[in-house]
Amino acid sequence: MKVLILGGDGYLGWPTAMYLSRRGHEVHLVDNYLRRRVHTEAGSGSLTPIAPDLETRVTAWREVTGATITMTEGDLTEWSVVEQAFRDFPPDAIIHYGEIPAAPYSMKDRARSVLTQYNNVVNTLNVLWAMHEFAPDTHLVKLGTMGEYGTPNIDIEEGWLEVNHNGRQDRLPFPKLPGSFYHCSKVHDSTNIEFACRAWGIRATDLNQGVVYGIETEETKLDPRLATRFDYDEIWGTALNRFCVQAIIGHPLTPYGKGEQRRGFLNILDTLRCVELACLHPAERGEFRVFNQFTEQFSINELAELVKKAGSEVGLDVTIENVANPRVEKETHYYNAKHEELLKLGLEPHLLSETLVGHMFDVIRRNRDRVITDHILPRTTWRAGVLTQSADSSSALADDLLSGTMPARPHHGRPRPRPASAQGVHSA
Amino acid sequence: MKVLILGGDGYLGWPTAMYLSRRGHEVHLVDNYLRRRVHTEAGSGSLTPIAPDLETRVTAWREVTGATITMTEGDLTEWSVVEQAFRDFPPDAIIHYGEIPAAPYSMKDRARSVLTQYNNVVNTLNVLWAMHEFAPDTHLVKLGTMGEYGTPNIDIEEGWLEVNHNGRQDRLPFPKLPGSFYHCSKVHDSTNIEFACRAWGIRATDLNQGVVYGIETEETKLDPRLATRFDYDEIWGTALNRFCVQAIIGHPLTPYGKGEQRRGFLNILDTLRCVELACLHPAERGEFRVFNQFTEQFSINELAELVKKAGSEVGLDVTIENVANPRVEKETHYYNAKHEELLKLGLEPHLLSETLVGHMFDVIRRNRDRVITDHILPRTTWRAGVLTQSADSSSALADDLLSGTMPARPHHGRPRPRPASAQGVHSA
Repeated sequence: MKVLILGGDGYLGWPTAMYLSRRGHEVHLVDNYLRRRVHTEAGSGSLTPIAPDLETRVTAWREVTGATITMTEGDLTEWSVVEQAFRDFPPDAIIHYGEIPAAPYSMKDRARSVLTQYNNVVNTLNVLWAMHEFAPDTHLVKLGTMGEYGTPNIDIEEGWLEVNHNGRQDRLPFPKLPGSFYHCSKVHDSTNIEFACRAWGIRATDLNQGVVYGIETEETKLDPRLATRFDYDEIWGTALNRFCVQAIIGHPLTPYGKGEQRRGFLNILDTLRCVELACLHPAERGEFRVFNQFTEQFSINELAELVKKAGSEVGLDVTIENVANPRVEKETHYYNAKHEELLKLGLEPHLLSETLVGHMFDVIRRNRDRVITDHILPRTTWRAGVLTQSADSSSALADDLLSGTMPARPHHGRPRPRPASAQGVHSA
Repeated sequence: MKVLILGGDGYLGWPTAMYLSRRGHEVHLVDNYLRRRVHTEAGSGSLTPIAPDLETRVTAWREVTGATITMTEGDLTEWSVVEQAFRDFPPDAIIHYGEIPAAPYSMKDRARSVLTQYNNVVNTLNVLWAMHEFAPDTHLVKLGTMGEYGTPNIDIEEGWLEVNHNGRQDRLPFPKLPGSFYHCSKVHDSTNIEFACRAWGIRATDLNQGVVYGIETEETKLDPRLATRFDYDEIWGTALNRFCVQAIIGHPLTPYGKGEQRRGFLNILDTLRCVELACLHPAERGEFRVFNQFTEQFSINELAELVKKAGSEVGLDVTIENVANPRVEKETHYYNAKHEELLKLGLEPHLLSETLVGHMFDVIRRNRDRVITDHILPRTTWRAGVLTQSADSSSALADDLLSGTMPARPHHGRPRPRPASAQGVHSA
């Protein structure tokens, strides 16, 4: 199967590429290193040392396994990049990770908020138009998030809801209560993709993924150059990954607010298997299929307790200190999200255990001197009446990307200097 | 009341400005003439001759009434424009018409599709961030569309739905089935605004408007320079307005498909009263309030028959010829949309009558020599497997706006030549 992986340099994109390549699929990657560049601007970075660029990664992959992964360094908001990828590599399936995935980033200030929605919505629109023009029978496997649903007071179904109202009935998109402008951007994508399926007969699977944890996969362990990134900071890190880092560096674990927020979680190994299952069992023409992609539900406090217990097994004295919640979310709420469709296709979950947490401790301990501690505690908030950062003191990277003055394909992830001739464009 | 009207040069924006100014409100307008520029590019235009720019319009308004309307020529996707407007004119209410409002435009090709979503979503995000930073108590009155709902098989409520599911209950955003990427963009706006109300405590009223008809208001009739635009072409024209033009020029009326599609409609006079009522009765802090803004439901065939009958009263021999439907939409469907909230606030509808159609005939007849007939029949389609226009033969205007090389504030609506220095920015 020819699989185009968008966002192939990311935490999940790169391990997915290796996983599918090892199973005999032809894989082509597209990435513009946006994730690396936002870290460079912020002064944060991956805990694990990762190869400097995709070329190094695919070269190492070839040396280690003999298999070839091809790649494009390019920005999916640019039509020429998307068009060329579809022309050079007509895909049987597209796995679309190519989006900015962080709620706090999208809430920090105006420019980052707009960049998140611009980047995510336009990337996906470009992919839909490319499918319509060049590959109408191709299957889109799109990464969404469980955070699109929020925490309604009813069971969360897989994307669709049978509604009975005033004696009439219909099957309608499940109502969404997203919790940040990032989560809103994923709702926008779902809206656009569902429409494209209905109007153009496109095949699509929207994977509403829970919170992913884990550092290693079978393939990342083959060679140090094949490691995937691992984020633990307040912007890009997620609860379990961040707690494990806090445990190792002797920092209290910091659930936000009461910590009774419940969410769906899954092991990175299951992410790889889920996207593989989706590709192997494509949606029908015109079908907008939604799977809730997680394996277990936990409250944040339960996760913290698990990490504390796993820590004590290996002699770590782990404490828990709930901090003021920087987010707007219900801290006590009903939560029962269905997740049956991927199990029906054959998913065999890797459930969370203290053993897994112990393995994560090992990797983190090896990289302990790389932890940048002052990026762990929350500094980005979106409570009513609180402005984290004025629009005036914002992100040069976001401004440049939004104003179109950033080169489209930065070499090796390092932004080039802005061309002098472009300075006056907007005031011309 | 200080009212900021975004999109103040448009079909509804300009009449709203005069209506509110005449009632003693302070009004400031923002517009970048995007609507005029897309018509210039396409070779289409308003049936009614309109003043060349906002400056001429507000000057005429002052001469005729003695009242002052102030204005900014600027693009709301640019933060500096939004920020300056909020600093110079701290509003009590914002009436937000500042979006690209055409389904066919958004479906014509990739560039126009992306421009529609980029423009609409970023405009609204900028407004939300400006409210959060500068005017947290201000009331946002945002124009949405009934087309966000599509045609579900259940009653359409006003924005929210009481859901009973598996023995539990919640009040959730009404599920949406938008019918074009334009309609999707309005769903995105609703999603973003609902989140901003919940997270930041913003006040917002989303007016899901039906199809507006009519050419004149009390204020546009005061002076020829105060006329508002009137579109009848396949991209910007809407059913009733287009049928009236067809009747006058002796062209058959052309319902799309079976013509049994039912929609909500309202007179332009009621649009003005509805936005006034929304402003006078603001939403609560944190409330995302949705009103369905229309007064009557008709099928497209019923509208055609009404125009035919009104035509025969004045000696016109009007025929009806249904044409192949260029859109993807159900042609036979249940439709019962609630519209009670604005009536409760005091709306007294101007219902559609043959008399009103007769008045429209008069205005159209006076401008008959301005009708550009080859833009009336549908050329833009979005059926599965049909590509209206390849991405390669697209819109220079859309490309320029998306790449950031278009000047932000065109003088008098005429795009300036693209600066030579900007040509190489993206390939630098």
